[in-house]
Amino acid sequence: MPDKRTVEVCFTPKLFSYILTQENFIVVIVDILRATTSICTALNNDVKSIIPVASVDEAREYKKNGYLVASERNGKVLDFADFGNSADNFMVDEVKGKTIVYSTTNGTKAIKMAGKSEAVVIGSFINLDAMTKWLIKQNKNVVILCAGWKGKFNLEDSVFAGALTKGLLENESIITECDSAKASVDLWHIAKDDLKQYIDKSSHRHRLRHLVQDHVLEHTFKISISDVIPILDNGHIIDFDSKNQITK
Amino acid sequence: MPDKRTVEVCFTPKLFSYILTQENFIVVIVDILRATTSICTALNNDVKSIIPVASVDEAREYKKNGYLVASERNGKVLDFADFGNSADNFMVDEVKGKTIVYSTTNGTKAIKMAGKSEAVVIGSFINLDAMTKWLIKQNKNVVILCAGWKGKFNLEDSVFAGALTKGLLENESIITECDSAKASVDLWHIAKDDLKQYIDKSSHRHRLRHLVQDHVLEHTFKISISDVIPILDNGHIIDFDSKNQITK
Repeated sequence: MPDKRTVEVCFTPKLFSYILTQENFIVVIVDILRATTSICTALNNDVKSIIPVASVDEAREYKKNGYLVASERNGKVLDFADFGNSADNFMVDEVKGKTIVYSTTNGTKAIKMAGKSEAVVIGSFINLDAMTKWLIKQNKNVVILCAGWKGKFNLEDSVFAGALTKGLLENESIITECDSAKASVDLWHIAKDDLKQYIDKSSHRHRLRHLVQDHVLEHTFKISISDVIPILDNGHIIDFDSKNQITK
Repeated sequence: MPDKRTVEVCFTPKLFSYILTQENFIVVIVDILRATTSICTALNNDVKSIIPVASVDEAREYKKNGYLVASERNGKVLDFADFGNSADNFMVDEVKGKTIVYSTTNGTKAIKMAGKSEAVVIGSFINLDAMTKWLIKQNKNVVILCAGWKGKFNLEDSVFAGALTKGLLENESIITECDSAKASVDLWHIAKDDLKQYIDKSSHRHRLRHLVQDHVLEHTFKISISDVIPILDNGHIIDFDSKNQITK
């Protein structure tokens, strides 16, 4: 590894192949509304692991095999599923200790794309500080991969990327030459004093307004209330700490 | 046309197909460092027309047929060419009234991509106000297509997109639901008081520092010093006013 490590921001999975200039990188997947916030929330509430799947059909297959399944389409919980994809489904006691199959189109695409990295972790506002500190410890380059919205840039993922980038750049061993990273830090500076109001102008947020209940949105923008580091491990997302306990 | 028109911003040509949600749109191509600034400068200095070409080979073919050719690679004027691609080449008397072949990889890709639009025009800081007013008059949707840098987002094109978007949104008939457009306006607000200093942190600018001389950079960030509206017309870029004079 060189002395200096880099952080790069990819505004949508469509740009991932153009962003990569470094080897030895960890990918942080970001899909604030809603997959990555929900996954962090679940692990924070002692869910054992999450299996991310791209399609409803995959989710249905898992259900037949006895898994708990979170799956919805157009905001409605699907008839075979146990609950929807919103974070509040994973704040309840009945999910503790369980493995949950989670269907997310955007999130799963991003996770699959990141396959060649050294590690894939899951970022959201609720685990921002913990993720920043953990990434600094790993001594790897970092690529923040925003899930975006239908292939496009979106405000909420980009602002989170800026928050994480800013925290990483405060460590003197980490630098960036990436314009997306620099722009995202500027957006974070504009947004940070009233995050909810800033994100409220997002087109994605507008489309989701009838899906995301107010108390869930409130939770989505709580900063650093959790220490979980959700990490992909053989197709399952588990908390990094529990992984280390297992392998010990 | 609906009562309201839209403005959308595409941060790189790689995202163009995901941005388009509207028909009847005009595309504004932006490649601040350097193609679109140079093209605006040329037409402002009474160059008759510009033929944009993607490759050095195409430029060489035109040269054999007697055209004046602007072509360089890695900052060096190619041996067969008359001059390089920097704006200062087009501020001189010898180009007035001439047709010039201009090789630009990024710019040409963007221009070709925009083929299905109602019109393709060329934006830069030097014709910002004129372009804003002209676009408002056209009564069409607007897509601002940043040429980017090697497929990636770049700061200078995005900040210009924000300046143009802001001007368009001041007209009450124009709206946006595009997160890229909203973010670019925020970047413009941060950058506008010291544009040169802001762009100086761009990675693209860093790479070009040995290519772009200080007086050319000074010129690049002069705002609204020209009234030209460079528009694509059968493969040639000409000033909209001269086109209207021709067709009268």
